[in-house]
Amino acid sequence: MIIELKNSVAETRAQEIAREVKAFCIRHNGRFVLITSSSDKEADKRFESEYERITVLADDMQLSSRKYMNETREVKINNVTIGGKTNHTLLIAGPCSVESEEQIEQSAALLKELGISTLRAGAFKPRTSPYTFQGMGIEGLKLLAKMREKHGLNIISEVRDATQVEDVIEYADIIQIGAKSMYDHGILRRCGKTNKPVLLKRGFGTTLQEFVQCAEFILAGGNENVILCERGIRTFETKTRFTLDLCGAAYLKEYTNLPLILDPSHAIGYAYGVPDLARACTAMGCDGLLIEVHPNPAVAKSDASQQLNHDQFRTLSKSLKAVAESIGRKII
Amino acid sequence: MIIELKNSVAETRAQEIAREVKAFCIRHNGRFVLITSSSDKEADKRFESEYERITVLADDMQLSSRKYMNETREVKINNVTIGGKTNHTLLIAGPCSVESEEQIEQSAALLKELGISTLRAGAFKPRTSPYTFQGMGIEGLKLLAKMREKHGLNIISEVRDATQVEDVIEYADIIQIGAKSMYDHGILRRCGKTNKPVLLKRGFGTTLQEFVQCAEFILAGGNENVILCERGIRTFETKTRFTLDLCGAAYLKEYTNLPLILDPSHAIGYAYGVPDLARACTAMGCDGLLIEVHPNPAVAKSDASQQLNHDQFRTLSKSLKAVAESIGRKII
Amino acid sequence: MIIELKNSVAETRAQEIAREVKAFCIRHNGRFVLITSSSDKEADKRFESEYERITVLADDMQLSSRKYMNETREVKINNVTIGGKTNHTLLIAGPCSVESEEQIEQSAALLKELGISTLRAGAFKPRTSPYTFQGMGIEGLKLLAKMREKHGLNIISEVRDATQVEDVIEYADIIQIGAKSMYDHGILRRCGKTNKPVLLKRGFGTTLQEFVQCAEFILAGGNENVILCERGIRTFETKTRFTLDLCGAAYLKEYTNLPLILDPSHAIGYAYGVPDLARACTAMGCDGLLIEVHPNPAVAKSDASQQLNHDQFRTLSKSLKAVAESIGRKII
Amino acid sequence: MIIELKNSVAETRAQEIAREVKAFCIRHNGRFVLITSSSDKEADKRFESEYERITVLADDMQLSSRKYMNETREVKINNVTIGGKTNHTLLIAGPCSVESEEQIEQSAALLKELGISTLRAGAFKPRTSPYTFQGMGIEGLKLLAKMREKHGLNIISEVRDATQVEDVIEYADIIQIGAKSMYDHGILRRCGKTNKPVLLKRGFGTTLQEFVQCAEFILAGGNENVILCERGIRTFETKTRFTLDLCGAAYLKEYTNLPLILDPSHAIGYAYGVPDLARACTAMGCDGLLIEVHPNPAVAKSDASQQLNHDQFRTLSKSLKAVAESIGRKII
Repeated sequence: MIIELKNSVAETRAQEIAREVKAFCIRHNGRFVLITSSSDKEADKRFESEYERITVLADDMQLSSRKYMNETREVKINNVTIGGKTNHTLLIAGPCSVESEEQIEQSAALLKELGISTLRAGAFKPRTSPYTFQGMGIEGLKLLAKMREKHGLNIISEVRDATQVEDVIEYADIIQIGAKSMYDHGILRRCGKTNKPVLLKRGFGTTLQEFVQCAEFILAGGNENVILCERGIRTFETKTRFTLDLCGAAYLKEYTNLPLILDPSHAIGYAYGVPDLARACTAMGCDGLLIEVHPNPAVAKSDASQQLNHDQFRTLSKSLKAVAESIGRKII
Repeated sequence: MIIELKNSVAETRAQEIAREVKAFCIRHNGRFVLITSSSDKEADKRFESEYERITVLADDMQLSSRKYMNETREVKINNVTIGGKTNHTLLIAGPCSVESEEQIEQSAALLKELGISTLRAGAFKPRTSPYTFQGMGIEGLKLLAKMREKHGLNIISEVRDATQVEDVIEYADIIQIGAKSMYDHGILRRCGKTNKPVLLKRGFGTTLQEFVQCAEFILAGGNENVILCERGIRTFETKTRFTLDLCGAAYLKEYTNLPLILDPSHAIGYAYGVPDLARACTAMGCDGLLIEVHPNPAVAKSDASQQLNHDQFRTLSKSLKAVAESIGRKII
Repeated sequence: MIIELKNSVAETRAQEIAREVKAFCIRHNGRFVLITSSSDKEADKRFESEYERITVLADDMQLSSRKYMNETREVKINNVTIGGKTNHTLLIAGPCSVESEEQIEQSAALLKELGISTLRAGAFKPRTSPYTFQGMGIEGLKLLAKMREKHGLNIISEVRDATQVEDVIEYADIIQIGAKSMYDHGILRRCGKTNKPVLLKRGFGTTLQEFVQCAEFILAGGNENVILCERGIRTFETKTRFTLDLCGAAYLKEYTNLPLILDPSHAIGYAYGVPDLARACTAMGCDGLLIEVHPNPAVAKSDASQQLNHDQFRTLSKSLKAVAESIGRKII
Repeated sequence: MIIELKNSVAETRAQEIAREVKAFCIRHNGRFVLITSSSDKEADKRFESEYERITVLADDMQLSSRKYMNETREVKINNVTIGGKTNHTLLIAGPCSVESEEQIEQSAALLKELGISTLRAGAFKPRTSPYTFQGMGIEGLKLLAKMREKHGLNIISEVRDATQVEDVIEYADIIQIGAKSMYDHGILRRCGKTNKPVLLKRGFGTTLQEFVQCAEFILAGGNENVILCERGIRTFETKTRFTLDLCGAAYLKEYTNLPLILDPSHAIGYAYGVPDLARACTAMGCDGLLIEVHPNPAVAKSDASQQLNHDQFRTLSKSLKAVAESIGRKII
């Protein structure tokens, strides 16, 4: 249940009521908002006079629900805005991992050339084997920050576990919580305490319900800048690496108020299908795309098979503009 | 292994060699073609002088493989063509089931109004419970045939099991093999003996490999007019009815030479998501779409929740044209 | 809804009421039973005086439900009985396919040696590729019948599609409906019209609900001798061929009244795991096991990797007896 | 590749070679062992004279592979041993969560009564919603430690994220890494640095390959006391909470050298099926079982539906002994 308190209720009083009704307490639009379990169907009568609006919800998809807020939330990443009434489709691109200054510099240059604002690259790689490349770590984050300074790009990078969450929050403009870490309370709770945008990727074995509930950890912590990302789920089909769940994307668009970004590169796992899938995602009207592109995919230290080369990406980015226009949206 | 015989080899001789090497024998472009198991890696030397071209394949996706024929096959449905160099996206629409003459007449009228050529509706419904509506059967097929005569539409309808395959072949312009019947040898083999186009739906628990191999039953039987249809697979996600596998669609486009039609209606199972998904499918560059539309979805005898009403469909069909144009294709 | 009519209601009258209330009508324990959709929650008042007992059900698992009949049904296969109060675990064994008289004779001899009553082997193989061994067909059935005459064994064999259902019903003692044919209305309806036991295998992409509903087609057709068989479902895990769903088996035991047989051989797809899994299945208290065993697995024409050899099977069959005894059951 | 160095090679030298060949370096049976990527197929010739034995492996399942060590590893939990030649099946039982001293005292008493050595209960619950009970945290761990002192029990409890790993290592006798945290490098690496036994649960969307590779993080860190736990994977079937993957269990027994514990309670999610499944797991010959049992399941703060009550557990524990004996094992 979500209880919006009257504007007149001050912070100490809001906290006091929150303790009494065992609620999370956040601030939204200058007003305090309490969130209790969705199993609560009636609000505590003692504080009735201080309630502005009560939203009873069927399940724990609460702050993210369109029943509570019936429009896509607007999220600002420095100079760039998605969601709300913008009709923007944010094209985020870059290599799987930061591998060297030379490599990431080439990626940054490509983005500048194409007028793309947001650079992605991993510094802490959540590999499933200890015997493979694990990322450059903090040095990778510093290289990304250097690219931001030099080229005026926004940076998105992944936090792998709770031990690096402070570093990623410090260096990145968007904090990415990866598919393998999305249940991590240490990360989720810490991200609720910052105001930086958080891109939460759906786990490949995660239901839509659980996915959105993990976003609730961040929202209920007080951070309103949560972006969902569908990146493929694990199914019986193994000719492709994962199965991009666009039915699920349609569900998230219909029932939640969070901007949605789609990641065709990780979903299919092979470069050949990325352009068609990226066009499909764009035509769905999503709020953004994550595309892996590498100066020389053949020598990439991770995800070699799924990264486009620069020429392929140039061609793709042009066609995405046409598709976006056909449905009244704009690639930014 | 596929062995194309020289043009000079006559039918009796081709059949003779086929018996010797234990091969299927079909005719393609005026030439006989033998197909043996893909485990054969070397052709029988005895008949070497009669071979025109040999294609060794890694697995039993053979006649459907782009290694054998490196372009999408062209399939004609009476006056309409898909695949080949057409850049056509065939919009197939209609209700889940034929329910009455009045109902199917309304559907036919809608298609005529929008210039759509192909009407879908089920007569034999493959329901999973004996206690629900099972379709009108042969009477349903006759009503569909009546619509064809009256409105000049092409008709597609589903064969449920081998006991009705003759009836569906007789009445329909495209024979649909449904997701639950796609392993049915009785149907597959019979469909190999006709020349009518066959739309083969992927089973919801079927791998891409098995799916294409089932198409091989029809192709190896001699029918070249096979169309694949992805309609959603069963995954752990249950907020939507199935999960439309567009990664799989990308795979089929890349590796097979068969036209591909996508069915967003059955995939998501809810009308709210069909327009966004249909636009996504169109932007992928598929050869066609199957969309369920009903004069009054609320009273539909099957699949009530997923059928669009006529107004929703009118709006959708307009936007699909724009999306198709943005990638250089045309909705027909 | 299930309506049991009074003993005094004669067949013509029962059929008349069935037509009026749109019900299936079967005979059970000398009394007529009507079955309508589970969406019916109130019985037609007009015939109230002729009703003995009414069972309202939540869904279309009706005749199979423990709410209707609260014990496992007893099924007789000639001289052998499972279910009911028997505590029998029927060990069914034999090769994947009948390949030759010599081979099937060896299998029959093994069963005789070990005192096993029921021989399995496929004659019509539901292969997913047209380019592999498709079974011996009717000749295979005849060889199986010969083994029955010679060795006094019961025979179980699979029907692949509706075109051979008559043959299998004629030759086999238990008709097996395979995982790929379990939605086939042509087969299901025909099997409802015989009294021979039917073993219905769960499709690898089939939910428990759908699975039991397919059994309802047979039960509602009038055949009470339906046996369920879990044989592995398709999941994301590919190190094993399928995933044996023993949680599902526990569900079926708890909620349905149909005997349950488990098939570890098809589930794992590799001989190494069959003994451990067969012991697990036995310890669960299932009504039977299907185990593939071949005189020489290395040369088997289908499923070579999952068949035990005769020595492995002898060892296994001994240990199964001990496990069965530990839970108060008997291997037959 | 695994390189066992000669006994004569001292630690400093071993570390030096490890740096040169980019290997993990651990100590095993008084000898140093280097582990490099499995893509290495030939060992560096420079140090040839110091190599005792080289094991080349097909993939990154290395230290856990039966190719490297062809028997189940023995793991000691204080006074209790599993694996090796023990034929022990460790029965671990207790409530889902520590809820109060009174509750956990009742659980401890039940274990003492039945001669069971190992108590499980969660203190940090990895819930998927922020609005539900999150566990008692450090207070829960202290209550568990109190039970250990008072009743001489071994304690197993779960670490949820990297922020509590130190606490769990301090208080528990077996550190449980839960299904949602099993990719967490922060936890895995820290657990490699302790010698306490670690029970690693398979993620419900995790392949066997990835699962074992996560165990490699701990093994390659130097901790040899790793126990695997299969607890159900997520499939399309939703009548049960998860699907216990006993085919996967058979695979792990065949190909890895790590002890295997099975968790039927979390797999099915309903108490009715736990006894049958627990018997099945025991008959498979696993090294242990995790069973949830609660003094009063109806009021449990988490997983209420799947916990047995004390009477059900008493009955079950007796029947498990009989099943274990039938295959030559002993419940401890």
